[in-house]
Amino acid sequence: MKDFSAQYRLYSDAFERMLGEFCANMRFRPAVLADGMRYSLLAGGKRIRPVLFFATLDAFGMPYETERGLALALECIHTYSLIHDDLPEMDNDDLRRGKPSNHKKFGTGNALLAGDALLSLAFDLALAECGRDEAHLQAARALSFAAGAEGMVSGQSADLFYEGKEAGEEELAFVVERKTARLIAAPVEMAALLAGRDRTCARTYGNALGALFQITDDLLDVKGDEGRLGKTPGKDSAEQKLTYIKVYGREGAERLADEKAAEAERALAGFGEKTQFLRKLVAAVRGRER
Amino acid sequence: MKDFSAQYRLYSDAFERMLGEFCANMRFRPAVLADGMRYSLLAGGKRIRPVLFFATLDAFGMPYETERGLALALECIHTYSLIHDDLPEMDNDDLRRGKPSNHKKFGTGNALLAGDALLSLAFDLALAECGRDEAHLQAARALSFAAGAEGMVSGQSADLFYEGKEAGEEELAFVVERKTARLIAAPVEMAALLAGRDRTCARTYGNALGALFQITDDLLDVKGDEGRLGKTPGKDSAEQKLTYIKVYGREGAERLADEKAAEAERALAGFGEKTQFLRKLVAAVRGRER
Repeated sequence: MKDFSAQYRLYSDAFERMLGEFCANMRFRPAVLADGMRYSLLAGGKRIRPVLFFATLDAFGMPYETERGLALALECIHTYSLIHDDLPEMDNDDLRRGKPSNHKKFGTGNALLAGDALLSLAFDLALAECGRDEAHLQAARALSFAAGAEGMVSGQSADLFYEGKEAGEEELAFVVERKTARLIAAPVEMAALLAGRDRTCARTYGNALGALFQITDDLLDVKGDEGRLGKTPGKDSAEQKLTYIKVYGREGAERLADEKAAEAERALAGFGEKTQFLRKLVAAVRGRER
Repeated sequence: MKDFSAQYRLYSDAFERMLGEFCANMRFRPAVLADGMRYSLLAGGKRIRPVLFFATLDAFGMPYETERGLALALECIHTYSLIHDDLPEMDNDDLRRGKPSNHKKFGTGNALLAGDALLSLAFDLALAECGRDEAHLQAARALSFAAGAEGMVSGQSADLFYEGKEAGEEELAFVVERKTARLIAAPVEMAALLAGRDRTCARTYGNALGALFQITDDLLDVKGDEGRLGKTPGKDSAEQKLTYIKVYGREGAERLADEKAAEAERALAGFGEKTQFLRKLVAAVRGRER
């Protein structure tokens, strides 16, 4: 197997090609709507959800170049969530990945609608896959579950609800599992469904990796600098957000990150042989600097 | 056939029962999320989209009591659009159907998320139907098309774009077809798909009825009073919104309403025998007072 970052680039480049072509052919009217959607879709980012989707398919011996629709749907949902999350009524963030956030660039009304359009587009894309076979329908349903009122949106809602309130480990676990982990677990589970493999291991791996992702995010927020993060550091604690630092302290959060990494690695036992990349991904998220 | 309003009530009562049960069993957490979703779903309204869905199925000799999922999905999408449309970055409306709008009741952040959750939920519901047969998948795709970046959202975006700008008949037709008519046409087209009938007549009927709906809405805005409308009258013209009154004048709008009503009625020729209710519905929308 190639070196980890080369392999990551292989998956993310494959996705960037799909996304680039998709955005270039995007003809939605009025132009401001398509421009806003494209702006945020092409604002970069690690593409971790499509990468996880492709890597898990690959680990299960399935082709991934043919899974364009669900990969794009994953990124559309992630992107809409960032646009809405940055809006003044939510996190009110002016910067995203080092560039003006969508509403800073296009205005709040247009940003709201670009988000709505991306969420709708995700389902357009997912529904277009459903005709292929029962497995694709199941994968689309897993994505929908992860994104909606049992998944990401409920996590956002809980995050808002607990802001400034007394909340501890249980509340934090609820927020993170739903706000972050479910949409990280979704591509792993979707790949398992397409491959006809056990979705439980996939979900366990994804949820642990998702929690790890959030813990390292919170750690970066206290130790990061703006240039590298592409967003304003220290913002979460200033706003009394419920974070791993607040609940566990910095050392406790580091310990918990190790535990989640170990949990994700253990879950890979159910994945068969080709788990090298998914194992190294855990280590990479544990050690990430942005 | 029963008298028109008794028949309307038959369809809308059937839907209200489904919706009431659905909302009563809604267990999303945190409670504020489910409360916000329920508040707007149960805020009343004419339920014209589910009624159109049921009535068209009925006209085609199909059962409608079994089409709970797509009917709920239609109303979830309509409801999310109202919540987001009322937000400060869009129409900034404090009243909706005579009650505080969602963000006035729950705050803007929660309203944004209640909308996102309802849109996601619509697709959860629609995807759950897709396993039944190919026709249900096609119907779900028609719904998704009508709601998204080729449909309702693009209409909202164009509406925002043209605000205060020079715009005429063509721009208005674009806005109304997408913002209003596509989601009115969707249930008619979905019913045609489920019945294996011609979707073109269905779409023509729905689009004409949708335009008629918007024209009468604009007319009510200039002649209505707040108590009956449940919203602030005269608001559209005060905000230099692109309306039929602005483009055609009041008399011209009345004439165009008659034309659209005639167009909708003509399209019913392709529907077979049982078109009485759908025909009377056109007259009812033409003559509505709220």
